[in-house]
Amino acid sequence: MPAFLNNVFVTEEEAKLHNSDLSMQRGYAVFDFFRTVNTKPLFEEDHLNRFFHSANDMHLSVTKSREELKQIIDALIEQSQLKEAGIRLMLTGGYAADTYHLAEPNLLITCKPVKTSTQELFEKGSSAITYNHQRELPHIKSINYLMAVWLQPLLKEKGSDDVLYHHNGIVTEFPRANVFAVINHVLVTPASNILRGITRKYVLEQAGSFIKTEERDIKVEELYHASEIFLTSTTKRVIPVLRLNDVIVAKGTPGPVASALWEMFMKMEQNI
Amino acid sequence: MPAFLNNVFVTEEEAKLHNSDLSMQRGYAVFDFFRTVNTKPLFEEDHLNRFFHSANDMHLSVTKSREELKQIIDALIEQSQLKEAGIRLMLTGGYAADTYHLAEPNLLITCKPVKTSTQELFEKGSSAITYNHQRELPHIKSINYLMAVWLQPLLKEKGSDDVLYHHNGIVTEFPRANVFAVINHVLVTPASNILRGITRKYVLEQAGSFIKTEERDIKVEELYHASEIFLTSTTKRVIPVLRLNDVIVAKGTPGPVASALWEMFMKMEQNI
Repeated sequence: MPAFLNNVFVTEEEAKLHNSDLSMQRGYAVFDFFRTVNTKPLFEEDHLNRFFHSANDMHLSVTKSREELKQIIDALIEQSQLKEAGIRLMLTGGYAADTYHLAEPNLLITCKPVKTSTQELFEKGSSAITYNHQRELPHIKSINYLMAVWLQPLLKEKGSDDVLYHHNGIVTEFPRANVFAVINHVLVTPASNILRGITRKYVLEQAGSFIKTEERDIKVEELYHASEIFLTSTTKRVIPVLRLNDVIVAKGTPGPVASALWEMFMKMEQNI
Repeated sequence: MPAFLNNVFVTEEEAKLHNSDLSMQRGYAVFDFFRTVNTKPLFEEDHLNRFFHSANDMHLSVTKSREELKQIIDALIEQSQLKEAGIRLMLTGGYAADTYHLAEPNLLITCKPVKTSTQELFEKGSSAITYNHQRELPHIKSINYLMAVWLQPLLKEKGSDDVLYHHNGIVTEFPRANVFAVINHVLVTPASNILRGITRKYVLEQAGSFIKTEERDIKVEELYHASEIFLTSTTKRVIPVLRLNDVIVAKGTPGPVASALWEMFMKMEQNI
């Protein structure tokens, strides 16, 4: 598979960074990730907007213009010959001579096969445990997933698919997905201390046509009285959460709001 | 300079990792760092103890035994021909096919020239601003320095050398150093939510011979009434903090406790 490193196209195998890079020395880098549908990038403008915002908020200058990035991405998609690809843009703190202070950023773009959720996965749904944790600089898509990876053995032990973070009782997000719930016939999603997902944005727009939506603080306890809980992400689209901390959510089957959104999503993709 | 990657000695230039490594994908890796004095590793056993603890607490298996690591380190020191070297051991979450789940760890050891503090730097001292932040999994020496690097432009703006973290008013640590203060003739240092530095340990042992020491919670306000504040780290040894948030600490010159510890440290190194 093809990749792009700073100024040159390379093979995926050549997409390496030297250990002096601040991503490896200090976990300091931002990224964004989106996918193609039938060779066409999905929500590319939104993802590029967020990538530039993340970089700026992390004091990193994107070394290419928006137009240059789009041309590189198009070239990678073509070289890959993939219809459904995952594009990952990463910008790091650079090769720091003193292993600590910000240097000239390294830009790395990869293009690889991507797996998305299926109708079967939608029907089966997902399970989650809650965990008190607030991500650092949550509005920035940084590479800091320390807690998420660290919790993997606990998830395995609990037989749970994922972890839903809350901050002192206020629900925030999954490590790689946003959360929605239907409470008293209103579709609610957390308003603050989260990464604003692009799928979250699309779902809020679409859902507005058939249900009242609200971005607000949600207490963990409220979720136990929700008629639906679901998550949204680039690769998973919309997936119902059917078990939370060993409690079955509503009837334990996908609800009408998630189902309607899933249908809308699939139709939109079929028309690309 | 020589390095060691998984099973082979490589040059520093070859010490690269593929972008699928969890250090770059998810900021997931542990490390430790120590130095040599006249070709001899300083506090090597303590640093290896901490490295193994960090790895274990991060669910990572060190791929070499303690004895093997020591042999590799000795070989690197010899190959480097450096009298004063910095040794960095890093163990990452490995090359993750799905870019998320823990894989076979990658081990990378580098050996490079290191700069240590001088008598001039000791006399000049250091300055710091305080900042409310709690590092995630603080007892583990992970590569998560997101906040520390992110704050660099603010430090520059404030004309401050470093940031001293506190957690809701309770002092913890510097990003790369521990903090001590002399308050009411007692040498105090934070007890919890910190990384337990090896220099911190040595200083506590040495100071015990001439001053009462205590590990306890310290409020930020207490620091303004301290007769001395200083930091300890592997490369800096003992450095007085002479300015905190624009307030001059005591008389603004190195105090007797820091000076005595600096002298003891330098003497110890001369006898290695």
